Amino acid sequence: MNFELTKPFLDELKLHLYKKNDKQVLKICDRLLAPDVAEILKILNFKESKYLLSILNDEFSADVLVEVEEDIREKLLNDLSTDEIVEDVLENLDSDDAADVIQKLPDKVQKEVISKISHATDVVDLLSYEDSSAGALMAKELIKVKEEWSVVRCVSEMRIQAKKVENVYTIYVVNDKNQLTGTVSLKKLLLSEKRSQINKIFDNHVISVKSETSDEEVARIMNKYNLVVLPVVNNRNELIGRITIDDVLDYVKEEAEKDYQLASGISESIEPNDSIINLTKARIPWLIIGMIGGLIGAQIIGLFPIKENPILAFFIPLIIAMGGNVGVQSSAIVVQAIASKNLGVQHWTKRLAKEVGVALLNGIICSLIVLIVCFLLYSQIKIGIIVSVSLVTVMLFASLFGTFVPIILNNRRVDPALATGPFITTMNDVIGLFIYFSIAEFII
Amino acid sequence: MNFELTKPFLDELKLHLYKKNDKQVLKICDRLLAPDVAEILKILNFKESKYLLSILNDEFSADVLVEVEEDIREKLLNDLSTDEIVEDVLENLDSDDAADVIQKLPDKVQKEVISKISHATDVVDLLSYEDSSAGALMAKELIKVKEEWSVVRCVSEMRIQAKKVENVYTIYVVNDKNQLTGTVSLKKLLLSEKRSQINKIFDNHVISVKSETSDEEVARIMNKYNLVVLPVVNNRNELIGRITIDDVLDYVKEEAEKDYQLASGISESIEPNDSIINLTKARIPWLIIGMIGGLIGAQIIGLFPIKENPILAFFIPLIIAMGGNVGVQSSAIVVQAIASKNLGVQHWTKRLAKEVGVALLNGIICSLIVLIVCFLLYSQIKIGIIVSVSLVTVMLFASLFGTFVPIILNNRRVDPALATGPFITTMNDVIGLFIYFSIAEFII
Repeated sequence: MNFELTKPFLDELKLHLYKKNDKQVLKICDRLLAPDVAEILKILNFKESKYLLSILNDEFSADVLVEVEEDIREKLLNDLSTDEIVEDVLENLDSDDAADVIQKLPDKVQKEVISKISHATDVVDLLSYEDSSAGALMAKELIKVKEEWSVVRCVSEMRIQAKKVENVYTIYVVNDKNQLTGTVSLKKLLLSEKRSQINKIFDNHVISVKSETSDEEVARIMNKYNLVVLPVVNNRNELIGRITIDDVLDYVKEEAEKDYQLASGISESIEPNDSIINLTKARIPWLIIGMIGGLIGAQIIGLFPIKENPILAFFIPLIIAMGGNVGVQSSAIVVQAIASKNLGVQHWTKRLAKEVGVALLNGIICSLIVLIVCFLLYSQIKIGIIVSVSLVTVMLFASLFGTFVPIILNNRRVDPALATGPFITTMNDVIGLFIYFSIAEFII
Repeated sequence: MNFELTKPFLDELKLHLYKKNDKQVLKICDRLLAPDVAEILKILNFKESKYLLSILNDEFSADVLVEVEEDIREKLLNDLSTDEIVEDVLENLDSDDAADVIQKLPDKVQKEVISKISHATDVVDLLSYEDSSAGALMAKELIKVKEEWSVVRCVSEMRIQAKKVENVYTIYVVNDKNQLTGTVSLKKLLLSEKRSQINKIFDNHVISVKSETSDEEVARIMNKYNLVVLPVVNNRNELIGRITIDDVLDYVKEEAEKDYQLASGISESIEPNDSIINLTKARIPWLIIGMIGGLIGAQIIGLFPIKENPILAFFIPLIIAMGGNVGVQSSAIVVQAIASKNLGVQHWTKRLAKEVGVALLNGIICSLIVLIVCFLLYSQIKIGIIVSVSLVTVMLFASLFGTFVPIILNNRRVDPALATGPFITTMNDVIGLFIYFSIAEFII
């Protein structure tokens, strides 16, 4: 049965924890998996969490600590000595999870811990790779066999290697120089003759990445080839690790959230549980940009004799809103095209021509409506013309601007999603106002 | 070696295709995987694509057709008879891929095709599940063994079942009533004694979903438990299929893109390659909303004697921009909290209190800046006060509005990401103007 966190369940667990009724607690937890317990820790207080982890076996509680949210983990680990962190937690983890946990420790504790772990070479090695690279994502645990081995030898070799590897999806085949030459599936191994040689049955169509490959590229490759696990090699094509899909799924989710936050004007990764100060810090930069835009807008309007033509002020919100909306739409399409690698340089002209077409069509439709409304509401044909012409111009400009900005940002290696945020909206506001009042000046 | 699509490669392939030099083409394709060929088809013209597929073996070309983009597949399948579609394509596919391909066929062809496929029951069964449910995502192919079997019997049974299953990650264990009771990994099977009974070695902690479970929930569960494959059961807990992570990865990506598009004011899923008319259709609804907002804004400004106080017009862009930015920021945080299930009803009050705190802090900072700038630039203390007070009020309002709207939308089962789009911006524009001019009226 799948676990569901209910109030009666929680009350029962809390009661047993309070009474230090270890047997009952263990009986309850026996039905749970590590992510379930991590979910429960979110709700328990610190004392309860600590006690719960202390009575679970070390391997299970280490898994829980990997799954639990960062701030809770930090508190729980702070309470342990470095010896306990090493022996009870890190020794029970895969190298990639251990490296992740270590990376989040305070500098001083980190150093002490590293000097104490027994599989130090693996973990320290992982810590040396650059962030956001395949090397930082991979785990060192994997099963590899040699081309000339028989199936029987492979299985006995697996008995030794497999202890360290929790989930085995693929067995890697290497040559004498430890270079990756292919893979053999467990299914194939199970179904082949005992005496067959690996080089007769293995698959030499193997996709791999270098340790310096970016996580973005790793995600793209695993997604493209529907891979569950991806081997990592060094520059000599020697097998050094493997990346599993669950790490990539997290990456894909985080990336999507980042784009969305950028588009919504939030500058850093934040959680709803962050403090008011942190939330303010993440949001104020965009607000300041918006404010500067608004003040520049005020100056632009001030240049125009608005007193003589107050009715022009009526349409400021319309011009601004439309410019902003069109700009964000155009940017979003380009950002998604860039993200899915759908946009080659050779497609730029086509892309622009199409964007102009869409903007013109939308602009003409909207302008006609505005022209009619202006005439009906204010019976001013001249104002109607000024607003309509400005609207088409602003929409056309915003669509070009919205298309170019993310492309330029991307070429300068800035996240193009930035373009769909307040930055482009503010620029559009200012330039839109300028276009509107220039056209007004000219026609009036 | 990983494949990279280069111009020299393409030129060579095209030349061989043109010369109908089948041997060379096959030699080139032997190094490629189906997603690579799908990538190449994006660039080849229809005649070349058709010829290329015709010389590849049926199984490989069927895999390519699954990977290729929808519009290309449609054209290529249109060119085949229903017999060819059945025998050359569908018979070579897993049930879930076959069902996907069938679903995209024109109604008439669909009916003919269904009547002809041999594994019709499986595929037709899959077609009967509701869209966006676990049933629609799953494949019927899986390997199941009985609790009381020995390891030897399992392996010989797998020989029969495994032919139909391309990637085997887990073997499912069922009882006499075909009810799912656990799993056994291939690793365990390989490393266990031949005569061990499955019920001695299998893992009975199995996570499963019902066929009617939503794809959102499927993605959440697979992500939470780091699963590569998830079994699907019916209401009697009988094993009926399995979902693999690659399908869920696609879902996660599409969902993220949908949220982002909604936030950017694009109403339907579009590709940069869509026609101008489709692109316009996806974008004009939001523009019309923005326009109506702009016209209402004009009316609101018209209510106020702007002619006597033209300087008030200067700050319209500022008020609008800040209201919009704050509203979108607040919505985005709530939308993400809803998506990650971080927001219980019990947290509402806390959420709101915090949002008010952040808005007030941001509002006061921005207002002070505006007050100073107004004084320096226009030396009008009264105007400065009007703008500052309006700014705080509008920002406070926008943050509350931005927090509530996604929660309300979510409760009414509308995608809350809609709130971060032009809808909320437009509402904020209108209400912000109203607040601004009301305060001005009151103070002046």
